[in-house]
This record gives sequence, C-alpha cells and structure tokens, in this order.
Amino acid sequence: MNIQEKLTAALSAVKEKSPLVHHLTNYVTVNDCANITIAIGASPVMADELSEVEEMVSIASALVLNIGTLNSRTIESMLAAGKKAKSLGIPIILDPVGVGATTLRTKTAQRIIEEVQPTVIRGNMSEIKVLAGLDVKTKGVDSVASEENAEIITKKLATEWNCIIAITGKTDIVSNGKQVCRIDNGHRMLSDVSGTGCMSTSLIGSYCGANQDYLTATVAGIASMGLAGELAQQSLTPDEGIGTFKIHLLDKIYNLTPESLAKGCKVTCE
Amino acid sequence: MNIQEKLTAALSAVKEKSPLVHHLTNYVTVNDCANITIAIGASPVMADELSEVEEMVSIASALVLNIGTLNSRTIESMLAAGKKAKSLGIPIILDPVGVGATTLRTKTAQRIIEEVQPTVIRGNMSEIKVLAGLDVKTKGVDSVASEENAEIITKKLATEWNCIIAITGKTDIVSNGKQVCRIDNGHRMLSDVSGTGCMSTSLIGSYCGANQDYLTATVAGIASMGLAGELAQQSLTPDEGIGTFKIHLLDKIYNLTPESLAKGCKVTCE
Amino acid sequence: MNIQEKLTAALSAVKEKSPLVHHLTNYVTVNDCANITIAIGASPVMADELSEVEEMVSIASALVLNIGTLNSRTIESMLAAGKKAKSLGIPIILDPVGVGATTLRTKTAQRIIEEVQPTVIRGNMSEIKVLAGLDVKTKGVDSVASEENAEIITKKLATEWNCIIAITGKTDIVSNGKQVCRIDNGHRMLSDVSGTGCMSTSLIGSYCGANQDYLTATVAGIASMGLAGELAQQSLTPDEGIGTFKIHLLDKIYNLTPESLAKGCKVTCE
Repeated sequence: MNIQEKLTAALSAVKEKSPLVHHLTNYVTVNDCANITIAIGASPVMADELSEVEEMVSIASALVLNIGTLNSRTIESMLAAGKKAKSLGIPIILDPVGVGATTLRTKTAQRIIEEVQPTVIRGNMSEIKVLAGLDVKTKGVDSVASEENAEIITKKLATEWNCIIAITGKTDIVSNGKQVCRIDNGHRMLSDVSGTGCMSTSLIGSYCGANQDYLTATVAGIASMGLAGELAQQSLTPDEGIGTFKIHLLDKIYNLTPESLAKGCKVTCE
Repeated sequence: MNIQEKLTAALSAVKEKSPLVHHLTNYVTVNDCANITIAIGASPVMADELSEVEEMVSIASALVLNIGTLNSRTIESMLAAGKKAKSLGIPIILDPVGVGATTLRTKTAQRIIEEVQPTVIRGNMSEIKVLAGLDVKTKGVDSVASEENAEIITKKLATEWNCIIAITGKTDIVSNGKQVCRIDNGHRMLSDVSGTGCMSTSLIGSYCGANQDYLTATVAGIASMGLAGELAQQSLTPDEGIGTFKIHLLDKIYNLTPESLAKGCKVTCE
Repeated sequence: MNIQEKLTAALSAVKEKSPLVHHLTNYVTVNDCANITIAIGASPVMADELSEVEEMVSIASALVLNIGTLNSRTIESMLAAGKKAKSLGIPIILDPVGVGATTLRTKTAQRIIEEVQPTVIRGNMSEIKVLAGLDVKTKGVDSVASEENAEIITKKLATEWNCIIAITGKTDIVSNGKQVCRIDNGHRMLSDVSGTGCMSTSLIGSYCGANQDYLTATVAGIASMGLAGELAQQSLTPDEGIGTFKIHLLDKIYNLTPESLAKGCKVTCE
C-alpha cells in the first residue's frame, strides 16, 4: 500500500472501531480535544484522579498525556496512567506542551519519556529541540529552525527513544527512526487558534487507538488536522476570523472521509 | 394544566426569576454549561473550593453536581455543597458522568445519593443501570436497552430514592415514582457533541431553580435540549458539522420562548 | 496625542511585540481568554503550579490573575506569581471575579491587593464596590449604581491603591486617580455570554504587555471588547443568539485594526 491507501485504511478503522481515547490533558483546550476526538469518529474520556486513572486507561484504546497545565497531582496521575497503559500495550501519545519554558515542564516530560516510554511524541520545533537537549529559546513561540535539521533531529530521537517523533510546523516531519514522512498540509491560521497542537495530538491518539501502524496513525492525525485547516480557511469570508475558523475546523474533521483524506493529503514518505 | 401548559409556565418562570445555579462540574464542558444556563435565562456560578461552596450554594436557587472529572478535593466539596443545599431546601441535580467506568465514580455517585439525597438524577441508560445495581458494560458508550426496561427502572429507582430519575437516550424517560413522562425530541447528532448530557443537566438545574414542580422542571430541561437539537440540525448546510451544530444549539436555546417550547415539545405523561 | 491616537498606537504595539501574557485564571472561560489574547495579537500562556509560576512569569510581559474558580492551591500560586511579577516590573491585572459572593473570594482579592499591589483591577460595579468596602448585595448580578458614584469610587480607589481601577458596565469607567476615562462602547448582549469580563481582562493584559501607559492600555482593552461586541451583534441574523455572537466576537477582535479601533471607539478622558 502507498501512503494514501494507508491513510484511507487508517481513517476507516477509526470510524469502524470508535476507539476510546483516555486523555490527561490541560484545562485550556480540553473541550476542543474532546470534540475533535468525536469528530474524527473516536470516543474521548477525560479522567485525571490518581485513584481512577489506571482503571480508566485499562478500558481505553489509547492514552493522551498533555502537560499543558500540569500540576503535582496530575503529574503523578500521568505517570500512573502511562505505566499502566505501557504494561497493557496501549499506545501512549505525549504532547510536551511548553517544555523548555519552565524546569518543571522539562523535568516532567523527561520523566514521562524515561518512565513511561511513549509510543508517539508530538511537539513543535522548540519543544522537540528542548527534549533533544539542544539549546533553544522558548517564549511560547517557535524557534526558527531549518527543515533539514528537523528531519535529522526527528530521526535521531526516534531511534534513540524507540518511538515515533513528530515535529509540527510549516512542514510537519514524522519519523520512526527508519522512515521519515513529510506533510505539507496546513495553513498559517492554525497557529492563530489556541489548542490546534493539542487537537492534533488527540487526533493522533484517535488513529493510534484503531491502528497498529503508529507511523501511519501519526501521519494521519497530522494530515487530517492540516487538511481541515486548509478547508476551514478556504470557507471563510473576509470578515470572519479565528472564531469561525475553529468552528469550521471541527466541521471539516467531522465531514472528513477516507476518500477526501487520501485525495487532499500532501504526504511523502521515504 | 396539561404538560404543554406546565412547560410554558416553567420556562416563563426561569426567564422571570433568573435563578442562580451553582455548579460543581467537570473542566471539559464547563464553559458550555455556563453558556447554556445563561441562554435559557438563568445565571451560572462555578465554585468548587471546600471553604467557599457552602456559602456560595446558600445564595443559589439550585445546585448541579457533575462528576465528569471528579477528584479527591472536589468530591469533598460536592458532598459539603450538597448537604448544605439539602438543609436549605435547594434542589440538587446529580449527573453521574461515567459511573460504572471506574470504582471511584461508582462509589462517589453512591455516596452523593446516600449522603445528599439529590432531587434529580439524570444519566444515560448505562449510568442509571449501574446506579440501579444492574450488570452493565460501560465503555463511554451507551449499553443497548429496551425502552420498556427504561421505564421500569426509572420508576423503581425514583420510588426507592424518593427523587426524580431521568434517563436520556433516543426516547427520554423521566419519573418521580408515580408519573412517567416520555420525551421524543432530539436528534442523533446531539450524541456527537461533547457535553450535551452535561448541558441538559444544567438546563434541568435552571428550571428547578425557578420551579417547585421538579418533575415538570426535569422534563422541561430535557425537552428544551432535544428541541434545540432538532432545530440546530435543521439549520445546518451539508458542509457543516458538530462545530456549527453546537453553536446553533446555544442559539436555539437562547431564542427558545415558552410558546415555541410548548409547540415543539413531544412529551407524554401518564 | 489625543486618546484615539493613543489607542491606535497601543494596538499597533500589541501586534508588533506580540507580548506573552501569563494567566492564572478560572477553568470556565480559560479557552476564550487564550483565544482572545491571540486574536488581539498577543500570546497567552496558562500555568498555575506553584513550582513553575515564578519561572513562567519571568519570561512574560504581563500577568493576569483571575479568581473565578480559585482554590487553596491556585491562591498560593497567584500570590507567588504576582510577587515575582511585581519584583520584575511586569504589569499585573487582577480580575476579582465574584468578590463579595463568598468570604474566600473577598479575602483572597484583598490579600492579592495588599501583597501584590496589582497594576490594574477590573471588575463590575458590585465587585469594585465590595473591594471599596461598601455594602453591596451580590448574587452574580450587578448591583444598580449610578454612574456618578462609579466615577468617584474609581478615582478614590485608584488613588488609594496607586493603580488603575476599571469598572465595566453600561458605561465603563477607568481611572488612575488623576484622569478619568469613560467608554461608551458595548452592547447588552455581552452580558449574556459567560466570560466577556474575563476576556476584557485578558485584552487589558495584552495591551499592558506591550505598552507602558497602563491607563491607555486599560481603556484600549475595554474599548476593543465593547467595539467588538457592537460589531458582533450587528452581524447577527434574527435566528442567531449567544453561540454565534461569541464566535463573531473573536472574529471581530481578530480583524480589529488600529484604524478601526480609533474610528469605532467612544472614549472621553478628562
């Protein structure tokens, strides 16, 4: 199968299986994460209390760990849920939001990577560079980095940590250490809406919950978001902005079909 | 008065009194709960710190307890707020979100029922069956159950716990142990949006805060949501989805009048 | 410069500098606060864990403290972040949500005012009156108060606490103790959406993060919200309501230019 055929199959599997995706995520974008998970065809559940997360993740098909508004209570819950998921073979997707901005975020992401060994890690260029131990300035905005570097870093980290690494940006790069995929979907307006990164991570979780080829699942999640961003932007009138854009994003994901994904995605893998 | 006249009066009372509805609810759908409470004509307040909930609920006209993202801190706050409300005669509406999925949720809902004795309990078929002690599989999706069973369970539980029980689903069933009402409003798209159950509970809270006939208030909350769902779905163009649908839901509740509710509701009581 | 020229310059500065605005805010309206901060041209970050807030605020250009859903954990974080910001000369904007409704809220707002000395305090008439030690009934709704009183209270408190005080209502009043500005933008529908007060505060934070004239920054934040409210309401069809209105609010802020702000604002200062 070529990548388009793989993406078609991946979305069909989500819609057929409707996997339960357990989220431990931030309170800023959690509602958007829930709705985009439903929109793609999966089923979200949010639960972060230490005494229930292991039981909850046991009935889930994927686990999303997003450190956007971490605190000492939820960090312990993330580690417990992550370890349980790992022991059960449930895929774990880490979104290291704001890593590098504070020591707590960097240390927590590192702990999760070491103790839980996530299946997929998705971040922006700054976040992944920080995880890679490179010197980066983070101020809530992406650092400037050449695409060539992105590919090298992605592949290197994926090999080192034996997982899928995804860097989202103008061009998105995904690697499992051997193969590297590039995704050229998306629109700059996506970076003007809070939570589009988190939502991409939830989509990756949805795909991983229904597909065992996690490289394809990660590419599918990112390409779905990028394509929806393009379509949402095209649907806007001049007097509309990010309010309407976000609503249309959800609409476009809801109406995305395996065929329209295959037709609209701009993905190359090598 | 027939049920249509009762619903007309119930909505008029909400709009006239604008009752304050104190919520202890989850962080996933809390914004939608706040806005739908305003949309129907009531006034929301969210506060969950143990040291302030008793004081806050004392100035409220209804209390909503929603365990969607419960934790050890907020469980204690829910119990304290609930007991205070009970002692003051303020109606308490319990939404046992995800009960059955984890032991913590089941035990917490049982504690609230025993220690607080809610005025209304609204859940889906799975949740209410779990509360009734029946054997159910829950995976964040409804179990299949015949409507006949729904009526029997609803009536039995309502009698046993001396409260209003509401099961929402394709047909919604509400009972106070003596009377049983069936509501045939709604659209399947409502189940594709995160939080429509929570929002129904907030509407029930809004109606209960302005009306002493809690059976009618519960029916009114559910029928309002169902009718808004129908109207919202009818307003969609083919390229729109759950993003726009949720926005229109709020619009339709905001524009709902006592007359349009009476005209559009599909309710029978016996 | 007259006030229109000052507002033009203030918005240009936000768009040019894209200041990072650190929020410790409530979980009800936090997503709207994040998106409106982006929409005006600034960059939001939400972080409330005690062990990271001082580090986070150190890289920010403004700090928003909003007590909407305060708890014992986040109160300590707010005080720590506030003191750090103060020591670094970073402007601090306090939104004393629901002050007067519970003792905890009143005492917390008083502690923040005493220990942190905010740069700007924005509230509704009831909230500011409570802070001023006046006897007010609060039930989540504004108390009725004459505009004349609002000006006197605003000016008096601003002098006493050496900060900017803003009372938002039908007419908004802002004072630094010497000058008083009146803003006549806005539409009553703004009070039918949860979080428009919080969003105004986030806009003030965005302007303060890019401008040292905090009186102008505060006026600019409030006038921007009021003008967006007018434009959003004008764009509605009769069957639309607060759902669509809130989306359009974000659109209008996103499309606001220094020129359209100067043209549309109804501000007088003396």
